[in-house]
Amino acid sequence: MAVSDVRAVALGGGHGLHATLTALRRVTREVTAVVTVADDGGSSGRLRRELGLLPPGDLRQAFAAFAAEDGGQLWAEVFQHRFGGDGALAGHAVGNLLLAGLFEVLGDPVAALDEASRLMGISGRVLPMSPEPLEIEAEVIGLDSEDPDAIRRIRGQVAVASTPGQVQRISLHPAGGVERPPRGCAEAIDAVLGADVVFLGPGSWFTSVLPHLLVPDLLDALERTTAAKVVVLNLIPQPGETAGFSPERHLDVLFEHAPALRVDAVIADRDSVPDPASLRRAARRLGAHALLGAVADPVVAGRHDPGALARCVREAIGEHRG
Amino acid sequence: MAVSDVRAVALGGGHGLHATLTALRRVTREVTAVVTVADDGGSSGRLRRELGLLPPGDLRQAFAAFAAEDGGQLWAEVFQHRFGGDGALAGHAVGNLLLAGLFEVLGDPVAALDEASRLMGISGRVLPMSPEPLEIEAEVIGLDSEDPDAIRRIRGQVAVASTPGQVQRISLHPAGGVERPPRGCAEAIDAVLGADVVFLGPGSWFTSVLPHLLVPDLLDALERTTAAKVVVLNLIPQPGETAGFSPERHLDVLFEHAPALRVDAVIADRDSVPDPASLRRAARRLGAHALLGAVADPVVAGRHDPGALARCVREAIGEHRG
Repeated sequence: MAVSDVRAVALGGGHGLHATLTALRRVTREVTAVVTVADDGGSSGRLRRELGLLPPGDLRQAFAAFAAEDGGQLWAEVFQHRFGGDGALAGHAVGNLLLAGLFEVLGDPVAALDEASRLMGISGRVLPMSPEPLEIEAEVIGLDSEDPDAIRRIRGQVAVASTPGQVQRISLHPAGGVERPPRGCAEAIDAVLGADVVFLGPGSWFTSVLPHLLVPDLLDALERTTAAKVVVLNLIPQPGETAGFSPERHLDVLFEHAPALRVDAVIADRDSVPDPASLRRAARRLGAHALLGAVADPVVAGRHDPGALARCVREAIGEHRG
Repeated sequence: MAVSDVRAVALGGGHGLHATLTALRRVTREVTAVVTVADDGGSSGRLRRELGLLPPGDLRQAFAAFAAEDGGQLWAEVFQHRFGGDGALAGHAVGNLLLAGLFEVLGDPVAALDEASRLMGISGRVLPMSPEPLEIEAEVIGLDSEDPDAIRRIRGQVAVASTPGQVQRISLHPAGGVERPPRGCAEAIDAVLGADVVFLGPGSWFTSVLPHLLVPDLLDALERTTAAKVVVLNLIPQPGETAGFSPERHLDVLFEHAPALRVDAVIADRDSVPDPASLRRAARRLGAHALLGAVADPVVAGRHDPGALARCVREAIGEHRG
């Protein structure tokens, strides 16, 4: 099998997933995105509340990444375009509205997303991690000035991503106060089980990356799959949810949320790792070796360079297959 | 030239234009829609006011007709789908929102509409009759119970289409109180001049059909073109704007708005014409002969049957070419 036929699955959300997908499409034709559906802010949050649909924003990011790589630059631009002004549509992304329309017309979100791929003429597949809208809950410390260790529970992606406290742990629930664990998307589970390589991250660690590990059937698939598993670390800590986190602390938190998950490789940016030995130790705890490369965009701080990330991804796939 | 290569242009708006385009696409591959941009109601009116764009609703109808004929049934359905509920999006058609996004991203409405055709994979072209949003003004009688002949001026498509008075005459202005005549869309003018056959109607007579004759450069092109000109009459009078109008009264009103325009044929439904001799006389005044066929949908009152209309269109084209 040529590298260009490798079946890759990328789990994540937001700009981080956009970067992974862009890099992966330069390595292989067979890319599936599995996307968080816990967003409750901005255009996605408004659509979710108004229409009772899956929040489309992270799904839209994945489509925009695929379209841009498949010659659909205008599709990518229109999908990402947000209406301005101060009216009823202000801030809505056009792609969110189109995906919401497809959800309503076709009923089934997976059918709607597959049709969106077809209509846009893109080869990648975009799947939700769950067929139901989800809600993140976080245990946060440092919010109480009298007792800095007091744990408070915070609900909702926006609240968690912007808390001034320190997130310790998250959990995930179906929206609307349902307390059972979230259901995984069957097609996403099949994609993970049938993949040659699975990527997790980069992205908002607590709100875009770790949620995938809190969908029990999806975590089970990640533990069982024979695919190589690669974690891609963020370049800089994120104010709010991971302020002050070292690269190795990101891996420790991942381990705490999914202690049985084994990982094959951890990709990190060489210049973003102050203590390579600690990172290698944290990676080994997950069963992984650390791949330190120059993957940062030289111009935009905090953003991966797709070309450099693609080279590193090719190396990670090559090692696993070698 | 085979009939399937005939270059047809259809002028109109709304459901009427949808019917003509559906019929024409069954006759020839080369169809251009030239669409009213004076709507100020519903989803279109809200978008026009909020974003300052061309009202997209009538353009959307044309795309939906083309998509349905070109195997893009899902595109047609998504374009026409309206969000429900009572939130900020309630009543907005998905196609209107996508067209509005393309207008904003590409700036030029004709470029945006051509890209929409390309993205949807349809062969028809959709053009606005003017590159600027327009406003209809009507002279209406019968609104004043003390003086039934008193003329009142009414502004806006919704107001005109729903007036309890009788519309006598309309005029058309750029939106925002500008009193110069509206500019025609250059590509629409070229399409009319280069056509083999041009269709006008059916549709809301004062608000979708006659406005085309009130754009001076477009009327000039209609008068100068060597294309056969065919008027397709409505099946039933429309409450509000043409309540009580006979078929021949529709033609008289057309003549009053464009006295120099010559027409080659008038297509009317045989069962909707109470007085064929009067209709023939009214048609002759425009230089046209009347083609009376069975073109009504046998199930839905007031709607043309696309197949039957296509046969009648083929006959009209054949006669002109013979």
